[in-house]
Amino acid sequence: MTISIDEAYAAQLDAQDPLAPFRARFVINDPDLIYMDGNSLGRLPKATIAMAEDLIQQQWGTRLIRSWNEGWFTTPEQVGAKIARLIGAQPDEVIVADSTSINLFKLAVSALRHQKGRSHIITDNLNFPSDLYILQGAIDLLGKHHQLDILPSPDDIHGPVAELLLRVNHQTALVSLSHTTFKSGYTYDMAAITAAVHSIGAMVLWDLSHSVGSVPLDVNAARIDLAIGCTYKYLNGGPGAPAFLYMRRDLQERLGNPITGWMGQKDPFRLELAYQREPGLRGFLTGTPPMLSLALIEPGVDLLLEAGLDHLRSKSEQQSEYLIALWEILLAPLGFTLNSPRDVRQRGSHVSLGHAEGLRIDLALLNDMGVLPDFRAPDNIRLGIAPLYTSFRDIHSTVMRLRQIVIEKLYEKYPGDGPVVT
Amino acid sequence: MTISIDEAYAAQLDAQDPLAPFRARFVINDPDLIYMDGNSLGRLPKATIAMAEDLIQQQWGTRLIRSWNEGWFTTPEQVGAKIARLIGAQPDEVIVADSTSINLFKLAVSALRHQKGRSHIITDNLNFPSDLYILQGAIDLLGKHHQLDILPSPDDIHGPVAELLLRVNHQTALVSLSHTTFKSGYTYDMAAITAAVHSIGAMVLWDLSHSVGSVPLDVNAARIDLAIGCTYKYLNGGPGAPAFLYMRRDLQERLGNPITGWMGQKDPFRLELAYQREPGLRGFLTGTPPMLSLALIEPGVDLLLEAGLDHLRSKSEQQSEYLIALWEILLAPLGFTLNSPRDVRQRGSHVSLGHAEGLRIDLALLNDMGVLPDFRAPDNIRLGIAPLYTSFRDIHSTVMRLRQIVIEKLYEKYPGDGPVVT
Repeated sequence: MTISIDEAYAAQLDAQDPLAPFRARFVINDPDLIYMDGNSLGRLPKATIAMAEDLIQQQWGTRLIRSWNEGWFTTPEQVGAKIARLIGAQPDEVIVADSTSINLFKLAVSALRHQKGRSHIITDNLNFPSDLYILQGAIDLLGKHHQLDILPSPDDIHGPVAELLLRVNHQTALVSLSHTTFKSGYTYDMAAITAAVHSIGAMVLWDLSHSVGSVPLDVNAARIDLAIGCTYKYLNGGPGAPAFLYMRRDLQERLGNPITGWMGQKDPFRLELAYQREPGLRGFLTGTPPMLSLALIEPGVDLLLEAGLDHLRSKSEQQSEYLIALWEILLAPLGFTLNSPRDVRQRGSHVSLGHAEGLRIDLALLNDMGVLPDFRAPDNIRLGIAPLYTSFRDIHSTVMRLRQIVIEKLYEKYPGDGPVVT
Repeated sequence: MTISIDEAYAAQLDAQDPLAPFRARFVINDPDLIYMDGNSLGRLPKATIAMAEDLIQQQWGTRLIRSWNEGWFTTPEQVGAKIARLIGAQPDEVIVADSTSINLFKLAVSALRHQKGRSHIITDNLNFPSDLYILQGAIDLLGKHHQLDILPSPDDIHGPVAELLLRVNHQTALVSLSHTTFKSGYTYDMAAITAAVHSIGAMVLWDLSHSVGSVPLDVNAARIDLAIGCTYKYLNGGPGAPAFLYMRRDLQERLGNPITGWMGQKDPFRLELAYQREPGLRGFLTGTPPMLSLALIEPGVDLLLEAGLDHLRSKSEQQSEYLIALWEILLAPLGFTLNSPRDVRQRGSHVSLGHAEGLRIDLALLNDMGVLPDFRAPDNIRLGIAPLYTSFRDIHSTVMRLRQIVIEKLYEKYPGDGPVVT
C-alpha cells in the first residue's frame, strides 16, 4: 500500500469514500471528538432518537399493556431476523435475548447435555474473559467429569490453531471461541475450524461480538452449530442492549434451554403449571425482555443492512491497512508495537497498538488530545474502526496525536497505575 | 364498610385522597381510558421522559463509552439501594440484574448447592408459572435426587399454609413462593412462614413481584434469605425492565452465583482468565446490563418513596375494600365471583373477579367500554389498583361498566375462545 502521511491524503480518501454519507446518520454532538471506540459502544443513530420517543411516549405511555400484543411480544425474533441477514443465517435461526454471557451459559449447557459421553470444552486465552468465566461456571455446575481447556495463543496475537486441531478429540463436546478476538482482533477461519471440529464429532460455538456488523459472516455456509454476539458494538444497539443467539435450525428441537422461563413456554398465557417449550428459538427465551433496550437495537442494524456488509468490510480493510501503514512509518520508531495480526485476512475491524507506556499514553489521548480509544490490559491501546462513521481523517489525527504524546512526553503527567478506562 | 353506590361518593373519596396529586406525575395521554392494569405494566412517570432524553442523547450520544465510568457501572446497586428501602432491606442487600426468571434461577441453584444434603424445593400452584418452570429447570439440571413439590391451593384463592407447614422437612432445601400471588392476590404472612421454614433448616425465596411497591415489606425483620421481584409493575420501571434480587447480607459470601460473568468479576477490566468473584451482591451480576431499561427504573421508584408505602397501602386497602363492597352489591347478583381473599390482610393490591363469561366480558370491557384490565385464565378479570394513580372514580366506573356488559349482554359479540389478552 503506497500512502502519504499528509492530512490531505486522508481528506482525499474521505472524499472518495462511498460510505462517507452514513456518518451524518449518527448523532455527533461533539465534532472535535475522535471516537475510536465504536467496537466497544457504537454511536447513537439519529433514527434511534425518534424510535425511543415513540416507544416510550406512545407505546408505553399511551398504549400501555396493549403494546405487548401490538409488537413487543415478537420483537425478539423480529430483530433477530434482521441480525440473521448480517451473519448469513436464516431468519428463524437468530433471536435476541438476555446478555451475551447469559446466552453463552444457555447454549454451552445445552450443548454439554446434548453431547452424551463428551464432557470437555476447548477454548483459548484470547477469548473474552466473561466467556471463560461462563464456560467454567457451566463446567462446574455439570459435575466433576467435565473440564475446560484454555489453549494459549502462541504469541498473544494469533489464535492457537495448530494446537486446537491437535487437542480436539472424542472427549470434546464443544469448541467455543471468539471469532474475532477482543484484544488483538485476530479472526479465526470460521469455516475451516468448524469443519475440522465437526469431523471429530464436537460442536462449535462462536462468539461473534467483535465481528458481527464489521466482518461478513456466512454461518450457514460454514455449518456452524451455535453462536452468540453483542448488539452494542458495531451494531450500534445502545449500551448493554440485549444480545443475540444463533442456533442452526436442525439443532433447535434437539437442544434444550436449561433456564426454562415463561417467554419460552408454548402459549404462555394459558398459565399451565408444567413447562412445555415453544418450538424453535423462542424456546431459548426465558424472562420478559427489557423492551426499551431491545427495541432500540433495530435502527442500528438497519443502517448496516443499508450500507451492505461487503462495502463495510472493504472500507474497514482499507482503513485498518491505512492505520497500520501510518503506524509503521510514524509510530513504530517511537516504540509502538502492532499487537494485531499484520495479515488483513486474519484481522477484524480493530487494531491494537502496544507501548511500554500504553496506559499513560491512553490517558493522555483520552483526556488531553480529544481522541477516545479504549484500553485493554496490559498495554493495548485498542483503536476501533466503525466504517459507518470512522473517517480516514479520524485515523490520521489519532496517529498524529499518539506521535505527539510520545515525542513531547505528554503522558508523563499520568501515573503508571492510574485507573483503567473501560 | 358503609358505602354508597353513587358516583358522587367516589368523587368525594377522590377529593379526600391525600395521594391524588400523584396522578399528575404520570403521562395520561388518553384521559378517557380507565387503566386497571398497573399491576402488570405500571404507567409512564413524566420524570422518566426527561431522564430518557438525557440518557440517550447526552449519556449515550455525547459521552459515549465514558458514561460507563460516569455512573452506568454502578447503576445496578444504586437502583437496588432505592428498591431496598421499599422492602425493608439494607442498601447493599438488593441489586438490579437480568430478568425475574433469570434471577430466580441464579438464587435457586445457589441455594440448592449451599444446602448440602437437602435436595427438595417446595412451592405451590399459585406461584407464577415462570417461577415453576425455572424451579423445575434448576431441579432437572442438578440431578436425579432433586425434586420439586408443587402444593395445591385449598380453593384456588388461598395459599396452602397448613399443608406447607406439614410438608417442610429435613429434605427441604428451599421454600419458594410468591409473596402476593399473581392470580388471586393472596398474600402470605411472610414473617410467620419464614420463621416456620427456618425452624426446620430450610431456606426461603420470596417472589415479591406482585407486592413490592404496593404492600409494605420488612424483609430484614422477617429474616428472609432470598427474594426476587419485578420492576415493571407497581414500580413503574418500564416494559420488561430488569428485575431485582435480594440476599441477606450474611449469606452473600456463602452462596455462589452459578452464572459467573464479567460483571460479577473482581476488577473486571484486569481481564484475568480465571473468575474471582467480586464480594457482595455484585458477585451475582453476570453480563453487561441493558442500561436504558435499567436506568429508567429509578423515577418510578422515587415516586413510591416520595408517597410513602404506608400511605400507599392505606389507600390500596381502602380502594380494594371499596371495589369489593361494590362487587357485593352490584356484581355478585350478576354471577361475578370474588376470586381474591375477602380478608384485606391476606390480599395484595389487585382484585380478581370471576365469571362464567369471564373472557368475553374482559374483551367487551377492553374493546368497547374504555377499561383496561387484564385477564388470567381460566376466568379471572384481574383489576389492579395502583394507588399512585388509580382513582375511586376509576373503580366505580369499572364496576358500572362490568354491570352494563352483563345486563345488556354486550359480551355476546365476542367468541368464547377469543384471543387471550396479556
